[in-house]
Amino acid sequence: MQKSEASTGAGTDGNEAMHSIVAGLELEGQGGATRAVDPSTGAETGPRFTLLNREQLVSATAAAEEAFTGFRKSTPEQISNLLTAIAEEIEARGEDIISTAMVETGLPEARLQGELARTANQLRLFAKVALSGDHLGVRIEPALPERTPLPRPDLRQKRIPLGPVAVFGASNFPLAFSVAGGDTASALAAGCPVVVKAHNAHPGTGHLVGEAVAAAVAAQGVHPGVFSLVYGRGAELGQELVADPRIMAVGFTGSRSGGTALMATAASRPVPIPVYAEMSSVNPVFVLPSAITDDSASDALAKGFVTSLNGSAGQLCTAPGLIFVPTGSAGDELVDRVAAEVAAAGGQTMLTPGICEARTQGEDRLAASTGVTRVGRGTEGQTSNAPAPAVYSTDVDRFLSTPELSEEIFGAVCLIVRHDSDEELVSAAENVVGELTATIHLHEDDSADLERAAVLADLLEQRVGRILFNGWPTGVDVGDAMVHGGPYPATSDGRSTSVGAAAIERFLRPVVFQNAPAPVLSAAIRDENPWKLTRRIDSVVTLAGTAGESAADA
Amino acid sequence: MQKSEASTGAGTDGNEAMHSIVAGLELEGQGGATRAVDPSTGAETGPRFTLLNREQLVSATAAAEEAFTGFRKSTPEQISNLLTAIAEEIEARGEDIISTAMVETGLPEARLQGELARTANQLRLFAKVALSGDHLGVRIEPALPERTPLPRPDLRQKRIPLGPVAVFGASNFPLAFSVAGGDTASALAAGCPVVVKAHNAHPGTGHLVGEAVAAAVAAQGVHPGVFSLVYGRGAELGQELVADPRIMAVGFTGSRSGGTALMATAASRPVPIPVYAEMSSVNPVFVLPSAITDDSASDALAKGFVTSLNGSAGQLCTAPGLIFVPTGSAGDELVDRVAAEVAAAGGQTMLTPGICEARTQGEDRLAASTGVTRVGRGTEGQTSNAPAPAVYSTDVDRFLSTPELSEEIFGAVCLIVRHDSDEELVSAAENVVGELTATIHLHEDDSADLERAAVLADLLEQRVGRILFNGWPTGVDVGDAMVHGGPYPATSDGRSTSVGAAAIERFLRPVVFQNAPAPVLSAAIRDENPWKLTRRIDSVVTLAGTAGESAADA
Repeated sequence: MQKSEASTGAGTDGNEAMHSIVAGLELEGQGGATRAVDPSTGAETGPRFTLLNREQLVSATAAAEEAFTGFRKSTPEQISNLLTAIAEEIEARGEDIISTAMVETGLPEARLQGELARTANQLRLFAKVALSGDHLGVRIEPALPERTPLPRPDLRQKRIPLGPVAVFGASNFPLAFSVAGGDTASALAAGCPVVVKAHNAHPGTGHLVGEAVAAAVAAQGVHPGVFSLVYGRGAELGQELVADPRIMAVGFTGSRSGGTALMATAASRPVPIPVYAEMSSVNPVFVLPSAITDDSASDALAKGFVTSLNGSAGQLCTAPGLIFVPTGSAGDELVDRVAAEVAAAGGQTMLTPGICEARTQGEDRLAASTGVTRVGRGTEGQTSNAPAPAVYSTDVDRFLSTPELSEEIFGAVCLIVRHDSDEELVSAAENVVGELTATIHLHEDDSADLERAAVLADLLEQRVGRILFNGWPTGVDVGDAMVHGGPYPATSDGRSTSVGAAAIERFLRPVVFQNAPAPVLSAAIRDENPWKLTRRIDSVVTLAGTAGESAADA
Repeated sequence: MQKSEASTGAGTDGNEAMHSIVAGLELEGQGGATRAVDPSTGAETGPRFTLLNREQLVSATAAAEEAFTGFRKSTPEQISNLLTAIAEEIEARGEDIISTAMVETGLPEARLQGELARTANQLRLFAKVALSGDHLGVRIEPALPERTPLPRPDLRQKRIPLGPVAVFGASNFPLAFSVAGGDTASALAAGCPVVVKAHNAHPGTGHLVGEAVAAAVAAQGVHPGVFSLVYGRGAELGQELVADPRIMAVGFTGSRSGGTALMATAASRPVPIPVYAEMSSVNPVFVLPSAITDDSASDALAKGFVTSLNGSAGQLCTAPGLIFVPTGSAGDELVDRVAAEVAAAGGQTMLTPGICEARTQGEDRLAASTGVTRVGRGTEGQTSNAPAPAVYSTDVDRFLSTPELSEEIFGAVCLIVRHDSDEELVSAAENVVGELTATIHLHEDDSADLERAAVLADLLEQRVGRILFNGWPTGVDVGDAMVHGGPYPATSDGRSTSVGAAAIERFLRPVVFQNAPAPVLSAAIRDENPWKLTRRIDSVVTLAGTAGESAADA
C-alpha cells in the first residue's frame, strides 16, 4: 500500500516514473513516456509512465506463453482462489484506487465506489463460475462395443483454454472494464494468461489495479507470467500485441475504429484469432402510447430518461441515445417534461479532453442537421470538459432517410424521434442494425401495446443483445443470464457476451479424447469425476454425485 | 422418383439440362453450364447443369431471408420433424443417389451406402438435438426486488439462430458433407435457412439430394426458401454468396485456399460474418515402443494403417498422412510390414482428374525431397485417375527442418518419420500446428509408454481437435461428444466442431430479455417451460418438469 501511495498519488512533480508490470516485475519502457491528464483542469497530473517499445512487448507475451503451460492445468479451485484473491487485493487498495481514478477520469466518487464493488463482484462471480466447471462443457459417450454396424468408441469431450489473451481496457470503465475487469476475469477463469494494454487515460488507476493482480498472483503461487500490464502508444503497441503469435484471443472495449482496426490485424495474421470487441451502440428506446397516458407515469419516464442519459456524463456503452416517442399531445407532454428535466441537468467532467471534443463536434453536427430541432439543453459544469447535456428531436421520415442520425455520439446527447403510426414504429425497429440494447416502455395492462411490444421484441431480438422493458439500459446486472453483446457493429462477434457468466465461453475450445487409457485422462473427463462436474453423459445432463446415473432418471 | 431417374440417370446424351433448385422451384441458370466427369474414364457424363449468374443468386438468398422470418420461430418439434422427413426422403431416393454418386465420384458402392446411412443418421441426430432444445442455452435469473444495493431484474437468456447460412459441400463426401450433410443439418436444426452451393464434381448426386430436401420442406409445410441448391462457377458464385448481405454464416469443407479465400471475403464485408471452414489436416500418428513389441501387434498395426491410408483412395480429411515410428529393429520391422502391405494395395479411382493430378504432383515433390526415401508403393488401379498408394520415410531432424514435409497431400500418400528418443518425440509433437486429429499407439500395460502418452496428449490437445488411441483417425463417430475441428489451419475456427451435436452451436447467438411482461416472452423462456427444456435457473441446471425446483436439490 505504501509503495502505491508513494508512487501514484496525485500531486507528484512528474520527475518520478512508473513502469509496466511484466510477469510481476516493473519494466522500464524504452518507448517514451506519458502522463495522465486531469480532465477537470486539462492539466497533466501524477507521475510519468514509461512506454514499452515493440521489442519489449515480447517479454510480456513470452512470459504469458510460458505461464500457460502450467496455468492451463490449474484445478477449478486454484483458479477460483486466484480470482477471489484478486478481488481482495483490489478491495484492500480501494481508497487509493478511487482517489486516483477520480483525478484521472473526472468520474465522481460514488460512481467509482460502485464500479469498484462491481469489479470485485465480477471477479467473485468468475471464481464461482470457474469452480463449478460448467464451462468445461464435458460430454461423455462411453464405448458401445456391441453397437452395429460399427462399435461406438469411448468419447470424452471437454473444453480447454485458448492461450494467452490480450485485453484492452475501456476509457469509460477504469475498473470494471479495464485491468481487472470482465475480460481479464473471464479469461483467467478460463485458464488463459492475460496481457493487458493499459489505457493511457487512467494510467495510475491501472497501475494500482495491476499491482493488486500481481500481488494476488504471487500470493497464490501462480506463475507470474499469467498477468502483465503494459504501457505503450495506443494504436502502435496495441496492434503489435494483437499481431503477436503468442496471443490467441483479444478482448476489447472501445471505439468502432479501434475495434475494427484490431479485427483487421487479427484476421490477417498467419494464424487468425478471435477478437471480442465491444464497440458502439445508441441503445434505442421505444415509448408506446400506454406508457404516457397519465401524468405521473410521463413524469417518471422523463426523469428516469434524463438520469440515465446524463449519468457518468453519458459515457456509458448502454446510454440511451435514441428515443422513439409517439406524436400527439401525450407525446408532446413527455417531450416538454424531458425538456424541463434536461434544462435542469448539469454537465459533468468528461473522461478526456479528446472525448469531450468529439462529443461537442457530434452535437454540433446533429444540431445543424436539417429537420432536427433542439428540445432542451442543461448547463455546463464548473470544470473544464463538462459540456451541457442536450436533447434534440426529429420525425421518423427524416430519421430513416438520414443514416448519420443513427450514429452514436459518446456523451449525454440524445435524439427524440417522433412517430405517428404502428408502421413507422416497425420501420424504426427494422432500421436498427446492431445494438447492445433496445428498450420498450409500455403499461403492462394495455393489450394493444402488449401486441405492439411482441412485434417489436421479435424484430429487435434479431438486432440487439438485450431487450428491456420499463427501465433504462444503463446499469448492467452482472450475473449468470446477462448478455452484453449484440450483432455487428455493436460488437465484433454477436455470438458472445462480454458481461456475465457466459463471457468465459469466449476463451475456450473443445477437444475430444477417443478410447484413451484411463491414466492419460485429465480430471474433467475421468470416470471418477473428481471435480464433481455436471456433465452430459450419453446426451443426458448428469449432475455430479449421481455416479453415471442420469439425473433425468432420478 | 421417376423424375429423378429420367433427369439424372447416367447415359443421357447431354442435351437435357438440369437446374438450380431455388426455394422449391427449378431455376435455369444464365451463367453457362457444366457437366459431371466420370473420373474412372475422364469423360463427361450425365446431363448439363445450368449455372446461375450473380444476379440470379439473389433469388435464393432473398428467399432464405424471407423464410427466416417464420422459420426462426419454429417449435423444436417442427424442426425435428423437418429433419426426420429429409432423412426419409433421402433414403427413399437411396438407390438413385448411390448409382449417380458412383459414376460422378468413383467411390465404391459400399462406401457410398455407408455414407448415405451416416447422412440420414446425422439428420436424425440433429432432429433429436433440436427437439431437446439444449442448444437454446436458456438461463433464467428471476427478479430479486429485495437485493441490495440494487434489486436484481428478471433476466431470461436464450440463443437464437443467426440467419441464412451458406453451405459449401465437400468433394470427398458427396452426401455426408454436401447438400444435406452436417453443415446443412446443424444449420436447419438451429433454425437457419440454408443456401447450398452445389459441388460441381457431383452435380447429379447433389440434385437428387436437393430434390429430397425440397420435397421434405414442401411436405412439412415449411417456407420453401429455407432451402436452395445453387449451381455456379466455383470461386465466383461462392464468393458472391458469402458476400451477400443476407447470408449470416458460412459452413465450408474443402481446400485451405478455398477456405481462406472465403474467410477473407467474410471478414471484409460491411458486416463481417463467421466462417466455419474445415480445410486440411495431415493427422499425425505416434507409434510408441510398446505398440510394436510383438509380431502380431506390429502386423495388425501395419494392416490397419494401410487400410486407413488407402480407404476412399486416401481422400478423407482424417487420413493418416504422417506416422512417427521409433528407430531400432522393432520400428524397422513395422516399416517392412507397411512396405509389404502397401505394395499389395491397389489404387482406386480418385474423385476428379484435378485431385488426382494434385496428388501426383505432391507425391513427386515428396519423392524428390532430400533425405526422403520410398518405403513402398502399391499398384495403379485399372481405371483412369487411380494412382498407386505410396509410403515414404525420413528422419525427425530432416522432417523438422523441412516445413514442406508437414504439408497435406490429399490422397493415399504417407510419410513415416523415424525418431530415436523421447526428446525427438516431444519435438515432433510440438511441431504440430493445427490438425483435426492426432493418434497415439501404445500397449496400455506399459507404464513408460503411458507416461509418454500423457506427455504427448497434453501437447497434442493444444494442437488438435481429437486425440485417439490405438485406432485410426478415419471414421468419425457422429454423436453427442464428437469434435471434428481443431486449431487453424485445420479449420478456420478452432472453437467449433463440424461433426456431432455441438455443431449446432455455430449458428446461434445469445439474447436476454429483462423485466419482460409474460405475454411478450417466447416459449423457451416462459415460466411454464412448454418445450420442457433443461434450463439454468439461478445458475443451477434445472431439468424439465422439476418446475423451478433445482435438480441439484432433488
